[in-house]
Amino acid sequence: MTRVALLSRTVDMAPLARLMLKHDASLDLHAWPDEQFLQAEVAVCWEPPQGIFTRMPRLQLVHGIAAGIDNVIEGQALGDLPVCRVTDPGQAEGMLQYVLWGVLHFHRSFDEAQRNQTSERWQRPRLRPAADCRVGILGLGEVGAPVARGLARMGYSVSGWSRSAKTLDGVRCLHGDAGLQTLLQSVEILVCLLPLTEQTRGMLNAQLFAQLPPGAALVHCGRGAHLVPDDLLAVLRDGRLRGALVDVFPQEPLPPGHPLWAAPNLVVTPHMATMAPFDVVARQIVENIHRLRDGRELQGQVDLLRGY
Amino acid sequence: MTRVALLSRTVDMAPLARLMLKHDASLDLHAWPDEQFLQAEVAVCWEPPQGIFTRMPRLQLVHGIAAGIDNVIEGQALGDLPVCRVTDPGQAEGMLQYVLWGVLHFHRSFDEAQRNQTSERWQRPRLRPAADCRVGILGLGEVGAPVARGLARMGYSVSGWSRSAKTLDGVRCLHGDAGLQTLLQSVEILVCLLPLTEQTRGMLNAQLFAQLPPGAALVHCGRGAHLVPDDLLAVLRDGRLRGALVDVFPQEPLPPGHPLWAAPNLVVTPHMATMAPFDVVARQIVENIHRLRDGRELQGQVDLLRGY
Repeated sequence: MTRVALLSRTVDMAPLARLMLKHDASLDLHAWPDEQFLQAEVAVCWEPPQGIFTRMPRLQLVHGIAAGIDNVIEGQALGDLPVCRVTDPGQAEGMLQYVLWGVLHFHRSFDEAQRNQTSERWQRPRLRPAADCRVGILGLGEVGAPVARGLARMGYSVSGWSRSAKTLDGVRCLHGDAGLQTLLQSVEILVCLLPLTEQTRGMLNAQLFAQLPPGAALVHCGRGAHLVPDDLLAVLRDGRLRGALVDVFPQEPLPPGHPLWAAPNLVVTPHMATMAPFDVVARQIVENIHRLRDGRELQGQVDLLRGY
Repeated sequence: MTRVALLSRTVDMAPLARLMLKHDASLDLHAWPDEQFLQAEVAVCWEPPQGIFTRMPRLQLVHGIAAGIDNVIEGQALGDLPVCRVTDPGQAEGMLQYVLWGVLHFHRSFDEAQRNQTSERWQRPRLRPAADCRVGILGLGEVGAPVARGLARMGYSVSGWSRSAKTLDGVRCLHGDAGLQTLLQSVEILVCLLPLTEQTRGMLNAQLFAQLPPGAALVHCGRGAHLVPDDLLAVLRDGRLRGALVDVFPQEPLPPGHPLWAAPNLVVTPHMATMAPFDVVARQIVENIHRLRDGRELQGQVDLLRGY
């Protein structure tokens, strides 16, 4: 019988706990702040309380409930504890849908059409084949790679960038600092699907926006802390960016009265791009609990030096 | 040397004429109203003047410049003249992009997100896989069939309806009156890609909308005359329809002050969904002129009894 702690300051973990018990009724589940959690061997986390792992002497595994684990590890003392994340093909499907809406929105001028509608103006935009539309994807991981391939299947001219070199069919793959510069200077629509690391924090800033061709658009569904809101606001207001679709923000919910709500040519969405279904999350976590118990290799283990 | 008439009351045919001459410099082109057109053997048309074909004694072929030829044949005396239309894979690509934006808009609740943004409201919508979203396509022809297949590839649960029975991989195909009723009663998102015929004129009316489940959405990029604007307005205003994306209208441009411009939950676009590139149009028409001259079978000939 494995004791499992459910640790979140912000999310109700009860539905996840019920699904985990469906997969293994023998699990001994305890949710923070019930102090029983302190003796757990496994911690299942989303935005856990600060410093909590140091109070858990028997802890052997820290498990996230999503693809991003930045909020699980941030500021925590982890020692050499393994940290695992959940990845799911359904998550990439949802992300491709979200990104595709955004790419079509700018490529096919639905942004212009919606603006024109408010002034009752009938103005047919220029029609260009997808092959003429250059889309750049930052991040070619578990989510970025399928999204890049999906856009390429739709006929777009897709470039992708990652820290280390990758190869993807139908996608021009770039890497490193020089590759980033090449990608930024050539894209019409930039899509951010990076993980949050110390290198990528605050990366969507004035300096990056200045490298994009005038009139480029941004689709941001990476992590909120990638974005410097004031810098985005500035390039939307001065028209350097054609527009943006942004799903994640440094502070969520985006507070009422925040200037981004009413920024010109910006579509704000409420962190809705994708999510693994809780049932998939529960199954993957229980599988890893069994692997830990049996001494088998864990799935989805994160390289903490890289941060993803 | 074939004499060709370019006949349109509404479109400047000069760019098309230049491209046709690039493919065959020997063509003898004359644009209405220059009376030389009267002796032409071939008429290339978009909204031609009424009754004009009866004044052209040597006419052997009437050619449209798009997939729809309703505006070419409407009210015209054609006798047994062959009528051809232009179809192009690029046209289907453009249509799939347009329809996909619309389907994603409703399936992924971008409509709600955009409404919520105006009131600075952060409200995460429910996330459902594409397989749970039922899309119905009216019309499975040169444009409808590739659109249906493209949506199926994106994982949607796609049904299609046509007048006569068809088979398409990954698409539930229905036909006839009973099939139409089945489709309407089960769709969440209805996409109209029908040709305009006497049977389909005014088909998007109160009676059809009443058969849709409450909260269904409409994507209309068939022909303007399919739509009864007052009936659409009524189901948008009373909330029976969740929303609509409409590209074509009985009167185009949609006049300023028309109530559809400001109808609730309606996105109006300026007949922008798709268009074959003029170069493709020119090449196909010139090919058919050569086929006519050589007595070979014409491409894209329309069955005038069916109307498409």
